[in-house]
Amino acid sequence: MKYQKILIAGEWRDSTDPVGSFHGLDPAKKQWLDAEFPISGSAEVFAMIEAGKIAAKEMRSVSPEKIAAFLEQYAFNIEAKETQLTDVAHNETALPVEPRLKSIELPRTINQMRQAALAVRERSWCLATLDTKSNIHAKYGALGSPVVVFGPNNFPFAFNSMAGSDFVSAIAAGNPVIAKANPGHPETTKIFAEAAFEALKSSGLPLSSIQLFYHTPPEVGLQLVSHPGIGATAFTGSKSAGLKLKEAADRAGKPIYLEMSSVNPVVLMPGALRDHSEQIATEFYQSCSMGAGQFCTNPGILILQDNEDGKEFVQNIINLYRINPPGILLSASGPSSLSHSVGVLKKAGAEVLIGGKEADREGYSFENTLLSVSGDVFIEHSEKLQSEMFGTATLLVLIKNPEQMVEVVESFSGNLTASIYSDRKGEDEELYQKIEPVLRIKVGRLLNDKMPTSVSVVSSMNHGGPFPATGHPGFTAVGIPGSFLRFAGLQCYDNVRANRLPPELQDKNPTGAMWRLIDGHWSVGNVN
Amino acid sequence: MKYQKILIAGEWRDSTDPVGSFHGLDPAKKQWLDAEFPISGSAEVFAMIEAGKIAAKEMRSVSPEKIAAFLEQYAFNIEAKETQLTDVAHNETALPVEPRLKSIELPRTINQMRQAALAVRERSWCLATLDTKSNIHAKYGALGSPVVVFGPNNFPFAFNSMAGSDFVSAIAAGNPVIAKANPGHPETTKIFAEAAFEALKSSGLPLSSIQLFYHTPPEVGLQLVSHPGIGATAFTGSKSAGLKLKEAADRAGKPIYLEMSSVNPVVLMPGALRDHSEQIATEFYQSCSMGAGQFCTNPGILILQDNEDGKEFVQNIINLYRINPPGILLSASGPSSLSHSVGVLKKAGAEVLIGGKEADREGYSFENTLLSVSGDVFIEHSEKLQSEMFGTATLLVLIKNPEQMVEVVESFSGNLTASIYSDRKGEDEELYQKIEPVLRIKVGRLLNDKMPTSVSVVSSMNHGGPFPATGHPGFTAVGIPGSFLRFAGLQCYDNVRANRLPPELQDKNPTGAMWRLIDGHWSVGNVN
Repeated sequence: MKYQKILIAGEWRDSTDPVGSFHGLDPAKKQWLDAEFPISGSAEVFAMIEAGKIAAKEMRSVSPEKIAAFLEQYAFNIEAKETQLTDVAHNETALPVEPRLKSIELPRTINQMRQAALAVRERSWCLATLDTKSNIHAKYGALGSPVVVFGPNNFPFAFNSMAGSDFVSAIAAGNPVIAKANPGHPETTKIFAEAAFEALKSSGLPLSSIQLFYHTPPEVGLQLVSHPGIGATAFTGSKSAGLKLKEAADRAGKPIYLEMSSVNPVVLMPGALRDHSEQIATEFYQSCSMGAGQFCTNPGILILQDNEDGKEFVQNIINLYRINPPGILLSASGPSSLSHSVGVLKKAGAEVLIGGKEADREGYSFENTLLSVSGDVFIEHSEKLQSEMFGTATLLVLIKNPEQMVEVVESFSGNLTASIYSDRKGEDEELYQKIEPVLRIKVGRLLNDKMPTSVSVVSSMNHGGPFPATGHPGFTAVGIPGSFLRFAGLQCYDNVRANRLPPELQDKNPTGAMWRLIDGHWSVGNVN
Repeated sequence: MKYQKILIAGEWRDSTDPVGSFHGLDPAKKQWLDAEFPISGSAEVFAMIEAGKIAAKEMRSVSPEKIAAFLEQYAFNIEAKETQLTDVAHNETALPVEPRLKSIELPRTINQMRQAALAVRERSWCLATLDTKSNIHAKYGALGSPVVVFGPNNFPFAFNSMAGSDFVSAIAAGNPVIAKANPGHPETTKIFAEAAFEALKSSGLPLSSIQLFYHTPPEVGLQLVSHPGIGATAFTGSKSAGLKLKEAADRAGKPIYLEMSSVNPVVLMPGALRDHSEQIATEFYQSCSMGAGQFCTNPGILILQDNEDGKEFVQNIINLYRINPPGILLSASGPSSLSHSVGVLKKAGAEVLIGGKEADREGYSFENTLLSVSGDVFIEHSEKLQSEMFGTATLLVLIKNPEQMVEVVESFSGNLTASIYSDRKGEDEELYQKIEPVLRIKVGRLLNDKMPTSVSVVSSMNHGGPFPATGHPGFTAVGIPGSFLRFAGLQCYDNVRANRLPPELQDKNPTGAMWRLIDGHWSVGNVN
């Protein structure tokens, strides 16, 4: 067959109505890769919805234990394909095999799959609430329709539409998934799908509960997220694509969870710079250059005072940006997109301190870039100056006094994260207390003395934030139960006979370990 | 002064830019009431947003105890105005003082305010999550911007924009409220605002944390819900108005919680009709006629088998609809709107069994109305036949066999509730097991052997449901913590120094009664 097969309705099949085709690209060599993938048209995508609807119905009678076992088997299959996955992902993304792909991202992907399996088995995530006096009970439950997942280009494993947090969360909550591969790593996604489908066959889950296509024209994407037959969509990617999908989904009344853009401001308070300038510079450079700067939580704006300490710090990071080679970007559009963003910032009054143009090295690359702007100019053109630069490119905002730091922060729109570095003696405390309340409501995750690029997979994690970082300030893409609850509806049972209640709401605790809110008390016990 | 004052920026003031005015209407006498209320233009509404933004900032340092005390004092003030409130609301809505306004709706309103106060004081609602190993903590917290509340016409107390669940939930979560009165009961809303403002003055909350206007042109409503300065909107009302507001809010990335429409299907299984026909008929009539049928949870579609039992039941309810006088509707548009809906259903193939036109009695009224349609026709024209009739008007769907019952139910769109009546001997059980999974994912609350019109104020309540009943299947307008969480963002603290954490996330449990998820265990204790 000419094209790679898609996974549809329980089998690997040739695309029946490809509207085109594409190849993966090796960004390090600027060479197309061999395999050719179909671009699916609407008939094929709609056929997936129909198969997904049937699978959703069947999944209602699949026990959580089976879903957990599927996730565990899938994690095991991924481990067995470690070398294949990291090699292929490296070819498709130029991300280094070590440490990034093999020692960081793949273990994290497997870890979050296993965490999800445990949570599915324990069942606490569904927030079962029992009011025994009124005989009313509620829990979160599967949407009853397939969930569509669009994965981003920058995490071929941990946010892969076939293996990442959105995929795992949707399945964990009991929904089938229709995954659209990111065209930046189609082969990686195909290998995941093969591992998943192998696990699926012996799991007792419907064979159509995971489906995969590789690409589709934008208008079909809009039809998909607004289709009556789907339950919800998760999208991680660019703001422009995200906003278009959001509009289509919103109009149809379909939930859509978006992670779109974030400049992740880092605030360096005067005392922090005085005491730890060099250490912060190193941390900052490491955070900015991780994955060639292509992280959702990459620190894109750094705020510091334009005094002696500030000048010294800026000189330090200019040096770090100069002596370290730039990384290879994920795609051919990387350098031009960065050039464009740098242009937008320059036009709005920012000055290039170093870098600012495509790098003269093999592969798609862009010079490590620093721009700077005064606090006055930032406040005046804050919208433009908050344009995301997807790479190792940071805007320094040099403020004239601590009061202006507050003003600058007030002009921020919604972000995933914000970090505040302050001294240890309490000299920055007054300023912290002024800035924290302003930042707190603008970001999902607030950090102290730490760069934002590490996202721990724990219950308290919020990998989300107010619009336009995402579409809603109350949801997270990482962290159980929050990430699962996005793909569930609140299901209340009023006066429903005991034998007809789902096991999670019956008197006996179904696992002996499931936390339930019984008459206002959280408990792992039975109803007395 | 010519017009009633609005409550803006901490004081009762004359409207500065009224674009018109209106009067309340006594629907029983079809007479305009004396007081004249301003229709606010955009400048005034925007001024409220500015005052609300400042109040939101100030509220960050207001303790939960003060918010709880405000709600309790407000509840106390409402009790003191019981006679005034019920008299005025009766004049404005024609709802009977007894039992509805005085013995049911006002006590419920006060009760949910006191429940909210207790919850605010205990603090469990914010779902504090502590991961001590990674030093990451999270909780839900105020949006940091005012919340806009549009109240419906049908609950002058319990869903009043100045006293109902949305108002209370938004304040409880720490947000200022900008309330738009429902023009059906402006005077009632003004009395609430007076009681609230009196409580506010001694509470320590900012004086601009509650504001009230009475009416505004539709375009200003759209500007309001999409304004960068607001945090979120709650709307209860018609689907047409709700969808317009939703589109504006969605485009601006502003959360909006809508309760728009629901036909609340009631399924009578063959055994239930055989065993309890008369009792169900009585319950059904009572539920349908409550509040002259103007309930969000009014049963608008009844599904039963077209056999001997079914025919007898239909005859029973025709009799009940005939011998009982119709109620008075809330507004002048009530009868015409019902006429229109009946017309839509007739055009789609439904037949009028009784009623169907404006009633010949004093006040705005519409005959108790029953329509019927076969299962075949319903399946063919299910969209049109699911049009909401806001009054005592029900569509009977007469199905030819149990299998068709499943098909009919499959054609439903999202609803707040669905009820299933079945026999006690288990003869309906097989059919129940077929129908329940279909209905479960289409409604927020599933009932057994009970009509849907009573909404208990308990944690497990879901007064919500999939689109188009509301805008999202995971949120509820009634029930703590769900109703509060709509007006909160997920706020994660990563590596934040202990003394800078909010009290809810520090080692010591701030109330000794607050439930927190500490390292995967729910507890009211301290961190060890």
